[in-house]
Amino acid sequence: MYSLTVRDHMMIAHSFRGEVFGPAQRLHGATYVVDVTFFRSELDADNLVVDIGLAAEELKGVLSALNYRNLDDDPDFAGVNTSTEMLAAVVADRLAARVAAGALGTGAGGLERISVTLRESHIAWATYERPL
Amino acid sequence: MYSLTVRDHMMIAHSFRGEVFGPAQRLHGATYVVDVTFFRSELDADNLVVDIGLAAEELKGVLSALNYRNLDDDPDFAGVNTSTEMLAAVVADRLAARVAAGALGTGAGGLERISVTLRESHIAWATYERPL
Amino acid sequence: MYSLTVRDHMMIAHSFRGEVFGPAQRLHGATYVVDVTFFRSELDADNLVVDIGLAAEELKGVLSALNYRNLDDDPDFAGVNTSTEMLAAVVADRLAARVAAGALGTGAGGLERISVTLRESHIAWATYERPL
Amino acid sequence: MYSLTVRDHMMIAHSFRGEVFGPAQRLHGATYVVDVTFFRSELDADNLVVDIGLAAEELKGVLSALNYRNLDDDPDFAGVNTSTEMLAAVVADRLAARVAAGALGTGAGGLERISVTLRESHIAWATYERPL
Amino acid sequence: MYSLTVRDHMMIAHSFRGEVFGPAQRLHGATYVVDVTFFRSELDADNLVVDIGLAAEELKGVLSALNYRNLDDDPDFAGVNTSTEMLAAVVADRLAARVAAGALGTGAGGLERISVTLRESHIAWATYERPL
Amino acid sequence: MYSLTVRDHMMIAHSFRGEVFGPAQRLHGATYVVDVTFFRSELDADNLVVDIGLAAEELKGVLSALNYRNLDDDPDFAGVNTSTEMLAAVVADRLAARVAAGALGTGAGGLERISVTLRESHIAWATYERPL
Repeated sequence: MYSLTVRDHMMIAHSFRGEVFGPAQRLHGATYVVDVTFFRSELDADNLVVDIGLAAEELKGVLSALNYRNLDDDPDFAGVNTSTEMLAAVVADRLAARVAAGALGTGAGGLERISVTLRESHIAWATYERPL
Repeated sequence: MYSLTVRDHMMIAHSFRGEVFGPAQRLHGATYVVDVTFFRSELDADNLVVDIGLAAEELKGVLSALNYRNLDDDPDFAGVNTSTEMLAAVVADRLAARVAAGALGTGAGGLERISVTLRESHIAWATYERPL
Repeated sequence: MYSLTVRDHMMIAHSFRGEVFGPAQRLHGATYVVDVTFFRSELDADNLVVDIGLAAEELKGVLSALNYRNLDDDPDFAGVNTSTEMLAAVVADRLAARVAAGALGTGAGGLERISVTLRESHIAWATYERPL
Repeated sequence: MYSLTVRDHMMIAHSFRGEVFGPAQRLHGATYVVDVTFFRSELDADNLVVDIGLAAEELKGVLSALNYRNLDDDPDFAGVNTSTEMLAAVVADRLAARVAAGALGTGAGGLERISVTLRESHIAWATYERPL
Repeated sequence: MYSLTVRDHMMIAHSFRGEVFGPAQRLHGATYVVDVTFFRSELDADNLVVDIGLAAEELKGVLSALNYRNLDDDPDFAGVNTSTEMLAAVVADRLAARVAAGALGTGAGGLERISVTLRESHIAWATYERPL
Repeated sequence: MYSLTVRDHMMIAHSFRGEVFGPAQRLHGATYVVDVTFFRSELDADNLVVDIGLAAEELKGVLSALNYRNLDDDPDFAGVNTSTEMLAAVVADRLAARVAAGALGTGAGGLERISVTLRESHIAWATYERPL
């Protein structure tokens, strides 16, 4: 199994609802360093997992809809705790839709899985992995 | 599959028995930077893999029984090589027991697997992964 | 010259005023990984730059006044752009006041300088350094 | 499942063929920081995944055939795009051959899988994983 | 003293002349992760060391003249060993010329020093620092 | 000013004397990731700060006298707290003696300063800097 990972980041504000979150119930924020990994069993005709330029561009596109925003104001997340693990799934699902729509090129047809890790600090990170 | 990772560390002394260990047969020590990853298929009602505060607290509890100690003096490890890979399993098993005892709260019932990585330097680390 | 560094972090929301900030004029947030370095020419009687336990505790105290907050609501920052470089100075100045008040113990009398680095992502960070 | 990882690096020149590579079609180069992970279900008699000294030595041996070279001149790669993902597989396959030949000692009989990650920058890396 | 750092990277081929370089006399390559730090005593009117967007853009401009190239073919480096430390100075000097030409905006007039670090692997890096 | 840094590590056991050290008064240990930086104003005839191969070799030589040892048994440290900051000075002084003895070659005559950082965990490190 082959995989390729690209890294980018986003900076957002949000708050959480529920006693379990303690002081994080207040409006605060986070930098998420975002690692996206694409998996496939065989390389494409160019010996690649995916066109790394297109992958980085599509990742930036997905992040730009979240970046520099207060997620509490995003209708997509109304009534939802935008935890690190939940946001990892959001990024993965949105990228998966772009892959399905052909945004990563014809060679990307062989992609089998995607994994998204959001690092919220030097001591905590979350990952969501799903099929493509 | 979702996962969440928390990081802490411990500083211990120990020695190894067996020619394969070379100079590490002498009493020496290590800082282990410890990454614990919790895995589950669905998030809990708060959109979390696990209460990160409780996870960090229980990890610290497990490490405090080993931290700032000479493992050669620990009866639990009598006659045993406390290699990095073996200690990763010790931390994972002790955390698994705490999870089973309910220390991570009711939401933790959905946890399926745990993985523990001990980083002993910038060029070597070991991992142990097991079901919960 | 000797120095000792301790690391912690904080997660805040804020917005900026001025065209130079582009999309960062919107309410967003950041995780700042905070490295504080203490400098002195000679070690204390225990062979230390500073009691690392006290240093970490005082750093956490300074950060707790900012952590999990929207800095736009903090009267101390009314009308001020809370840039990474400006916040590095805030943390340094507040720690310097605690050092001057004796919070780091008698051995800390020999401290000469302090430097604070705030890492806002894997590709950007800022530092402020001042005498003690 | 247990695993152990060792890190080394190599510095090579190469060029790519195909429009997808853009400016990387020109002769350029890369530092690859190489992480090799060995997997097994049970530890050996010394409580190890593998003799870390032998593992590091064999990894260095495999890398030395590539290190400080222009891969465009290597007959093994004639007409082949030496992408990061493809080179990860080359390193893994060559290490697997050494393991099969007994280079990691008798305890290494229990090794089940190997994974090789090549980090080409702070924002991109590739992995190849295969059975042993 | 305040400072702000931005990170980017470049991937080049080159060779060295002189016995001291051993196997690095052969044509090989490197990824340089490049950290540029700008220093000044007082922040500008926006509370910034420098417009981080402009700084990143100018850095990318300087690197693009070197990136994805064989430095042995660059007339600027004819007969010169393009060591990591020498390339750090090249990047610093070229950025300094852009700062002097006003590329970082009017606020950048207060910049006093620049420092460039090139990281060639996880175990080696070089820095050049100069006044502005 | 130019500088070049090389990284290595050592793994030692030790204990501390004094209430300030709390549980670290017990015999424990540490991995120190060691970064040594050499400074000079002008590069040598090969465009280098120092022969990186020799620098790495001499660093390994200095560390080998400490590595895989219990520092409490080392007569050089009798009655001394081998704190991270103190050990940084020990490594720097021993390397400085080797530089003075010509171990880094004739080009090393231009070296002006040396700095040694010992990283004891992901959240703490110490540095000692001195002239050469």
